[in-house]
Amino acid sequence: MSQATYTLAQLADQVGGRVHGDGNIAIRGLNTLQDAIDGELSFLANPAYQKYLNSTQASAVIVTEDQLDGVPGAALIHTNPYLAYAQLSHLWEWQFEAQQGSKHATAHIAASAQVAASATIEAGAVVQAGAVIEDDAWVGANTVVGEHSHVGKATHLHAQVAIYHGVTVGKRCIVHSGAVIGSDGFGFAPNQGAWHKIAQIGGVVIGDDVEIGANTAIDRGALDNTVIEQGVKLDNHIQIAHNVRIGAHTAMAAGCKIAGSTTIGKHCIFGGASGVAGHLTVADHVHLTAMTMVIKSLNEPGVYSSGTGVQPNAKWRKSIARLRQLDQLAGRVKKLEQTVKQPREDQND
Amino acid sequence: MSQATYTLAQLADQVGGRVHGDGNIAIRGLNTLQDAIDGELSFLANPAYQKYLNSTQASAVIVTEDQLDGVPGAALIHTNPYLAYAQLSHLWEWQFEAQQGSKHATAHIAASAQVAASATIEAGAVVQAGAVIEDDAWVGANTVVGEHSHVGKATHLHAQVAIYHGVTVGKRCIVHSGAVIGSDGFGFAPNQGAWHKIAQIGGVVIGDDVEIGANTAIDRGALDNTVIEQGVKLDNHIQIAHNVRIGAHTAMAAGCKIAGSTTIGKHCIFGGASGVAGHLTVADHVHLTAMTMVIKSLNEPGVYSSGTGVQPNAKWRKSIARLRQLDQLAGRVKKLEQTVKQPREDQND
Amino acid sequence: MSQATYTLAQLADQVGGRVHGDGNIAIRGLNTLQDAIDGELSFLANPAYQKYLNSTQASAVIVTEDQLDGVPGAALIHTNPYLAYAQLSHLWEWQFEAQQGSKHATAHIAASAQVAASATIEAGAVVQAGAVIEDDAWVGANTVVGEHSHVGKATHLHAQVAIYHGVTVGKRCIVHSGAVIGSDGFGFAPNQGAWHKIAQIGGVVIGDDVEIGANTAIDRGALDNTVIEQGVKLDNHIQIAHNVRIGAHTAMAAGCKIAGSTTIGKHCIFGGASGVAGHLTVADHVHLTAMTMVIKSLNEPGVYSSGTGVQPNAKWRKSIARLRQLDQLAGRVKKLEQTVKQPREDQND
Repeated sequence: MSQATYTLAQLADQVGGRVHGDGNIAIRGLNTLQDAIDGELSFLANPAYQKYLNSTQASAVIVTEDQLDGVPGAALIHTNPYLAYAQLSHLWEWQFEAQQGSKHATAHIAASAQVAASATIEAGAVVQAGAVIEDDAWVGANTVVGEHSHVGKATHLHAQVAIYHGVTVGKRCIVHSGAVIGSDGFGFAPNQGAWHKIAQIGGVVIGDDVEIGANTAIDRGALDNTVIEQGVKLDNHIQIAHNVRIGAHTAMAAGCKIAGSTTIGKHCIFGGASGVAGHLTVADHVHLTAMTMVIKSLNEPGVYSSGTGVQPNAKWRKSIARLRQLDQLAGRVKKLEQTVKQPREDQND
Repeated sequence: MSQATYTLAQLADQVGGRVHGDGNIAIRGLNTLQDAIDGELSFLANPAYQKYLNSTQASAVIVTEDQLDGVPGAALIHTNPYLAYAQLSHLWEWQFEAQQGSKHATAHIAASAQVAASATIEAGAVVQAGAVIEDDAWVGANTVVGEHSHVGKATHLHAQVAIYHGVTVGKRCIVHSGAVIGSDGFGFAPNQGAWHKIAQIGGVVIGDDVEIGANTAIDRGALDNTVIEQGVKLDNHIQIAHNVRIGAHTAMAAGCKIAGSTTIGKHCIFGGASGVAGHLTVADHVHLTAMTMVIKSLNEPGVYSSGTGVQPNAKWRKSIARLRQLDQLAGRVKKLEQTVKQPREDQND
Repeated sequence: MSQATYTLAQLADQVGGRVHGDGNIAIRGLNTLQDAIDGELSFLANPAYQKYLNSTQASAVIVTEDQLDGVPGAALIHTNPYLAYAQLSHLWEWQFEAQQGSKHATAHIAASAQVAASATIEAGAVVQAGAVIEDDAWVGANTVVGEHSHVGKATHLHAQVAIYHGVTVGKRCIVHSGAVIGSDGFGFAPNQGAWHKIAQIGGVVIGDDVEIGANTAIDRGALDNTVIEQGVKLDNHIQIAHNVRIGAHTAMAAGCKIAGSTTIGKHCIFGGASGVAGHLTVADHVHLTAMTMVIKSLNEPGVYSSGTGVQPNAKWRKSIARLRQLDQLAGRVKKLEQTVKQPREDQND
């Protein structure tokens, strides 16, 4: 964490907020209500944490006007405390020592690559033939940018990212270590019991302001491109298969797997380890809870789920055994109904 | 995509097909029926796409003899259009600029390694002591081949692959970025509340014509080898634990996890994110739908599934609550049956 | 595998065991009861394998005193054969050829980094500004250690590990290829339909004797640290989100995903591909079977499960259809009960 210090008034200015109390208080960092110490600024974003407001040791707290009553000391009043915290967090971001615009002696930049003077190329990085690295971009240590790929302005590729050939990454993107962009889609034609590889001749196009997590993989298209629209946030270990399109501002938590040729809408939120089968369409504003298994298109916005939840193993074994007999059980109920001659409201079995 | 151009007649020759219409039509690329433009060749492999046949802008379409009637213009007639497409796709594959047989100055090749003159070693790659790289193999940028490992003829390791020591990769394999082959299996002996590591002294043996996806991991064996037989195709993010054996020509979609000492048959097809527990056997020709959870051996070929599918969250909550009461519900039905004294056909509850 | 040879008596000494039979037998390696050949030592750790004891070709077998009767030849008697095997396995571990304490000419070590004389830095590795590499540590080929990160004594980072800035790794840890430690947690504030990134200004602290599998990712904390306590064993493809704490000696099999701010107890064992949602607490000694989906805190030790298990697809389709009608079915049973006027023991529907 950076060691910068700001006055509370400076911070309020920065986010268009207002000071309650002493604007000259020196703020040396951010912290949660529970853990903050003197000199730190905290925030109340989740009502569940309101109970910590009274006892926080923070020197000031970001709250809305309405929450001001519960604040024991100084406050930074803002209409959206969580957003204000997000904005201020960058003041204490790690400041890398590598000099902006430096090209490390151990990096290899192909003669035909175009690397902006302001772009930083760290140790061991490889920029291959015909690649373009725009202004202020950062290519981390041992990262590889393949032939004729394009890294947009101010995009930060962390260490050990692998960008294949013919990939376009937009501006202000962040790509974390171990991410792979442009690997072959999984395409094979069956032939006499073996698989004949289909060359994957499409590319990958990633919009502006996209974040791609550690060890996430985005395959290149079979014929056309795989597309990640602007503002998409992908967590770690996500799999985006060939010819998938992810709509703008969709966020996926770790481990989601999207199979080939599926189109995901805009502004979706996917819980971790969810999967979507191939050749489906998911509407805008779909929210999947964690570990959801989508095997049909979802045409309406809303919250969707799957799975059995967790049970103690002994109870789970019974539930699962009964689940397998459910068709029989339904038949028995039907027979009972016939015997009892009970009128049924729902014939839909 | 490469910019090569061929006549339709040349392409038909290449795949042993027959031209319908003008064989001199120039073909500059491949595309789907919907997206193809003038100068492109398309194909009809899936009956669901037949509706696009009539309106395609493709200059020619690969079809079977039987499908010829619906083709508006020229055609390449082939008994297996999808296979023909797969074969032709390689004509438009990316042509890398690195010179075949070059060894980049920034690569490190140990003195005791044996690297064929025709093998290509890209920038930053590391070939460690005693490793063997056969003819026409390709070691991508920043890829590491560990001590005494063996990379077969014409195998392509993309950038940032990690091959540990004592690993054998066959001929004509393709290994994508971030793949790890030969990491330690997960083996520990419990001892007084802690875990004592078991050295993993087996290796990994990978057959010919295997493809391994981005960020897939294949652990080395505890005592014997982990084995991937010829023609296996593993997508991204797959986990193969120690001492697993995957039978020839089995294909697994992204995110499958195979636990230790399990044997998977030949010609299996696993949907994405499926898991198989340890010490099991799965027969040849088993097909798992996506996200299947295999916790017992599957001794018969066939299609297997698990999971609850997806539901709107509110309905799912009810389903899951009822699932937990299923044992009680079954008891209530039994009691009703006793009361009603109804003869039951199925006593198997 | 190393080619070392020991007498059975030497091996018994090594683990505090006792020889039954000829202590001068030369042992050249370890193997399973089924696969062992003359000159190899085997072990009986799992009663399921007792059937192989009589026919094993191993020159000696590690058994308990009680199991001695079934052993056809020599034995190494030990109270805990599996532990004895674990201890002896290290005698046949791979001996790397890189010289301890060497710093490869193609590695880049920043001027301000502190690297112990006895630490080994392999080809292409990058140790960035202010990083500390302690005695006997090993930094594998093309691995990156970020600014001001700390690698403890005798810790082994395999090839292509990515350690971000400000990360602490304890002593005697093993980190496998493709692992990423210190990537940004997945934190964004929603703002007018887009996501505003929250700088992740915490770090990662990893205790002593931790093993981290291939392609596992551990995110840095948002404000405070992500913490992996001593003795934790993480298999491949595991995701540890920001501000998670994993208690000492917990072991997780491949593919587990732990969401943000969740605390996992000590001595837990998680089966593969299990997931735990965010902001939960899991007690000590919780055992999850494979692919368990934890969406509430687990406050009691014990074994927990979820999922439907595997079924042939046709049966599964019926089960799932019935599961969706379960609420209706329960209603029908209730109505039957009312009609029949049967006294119910359990009103809890």
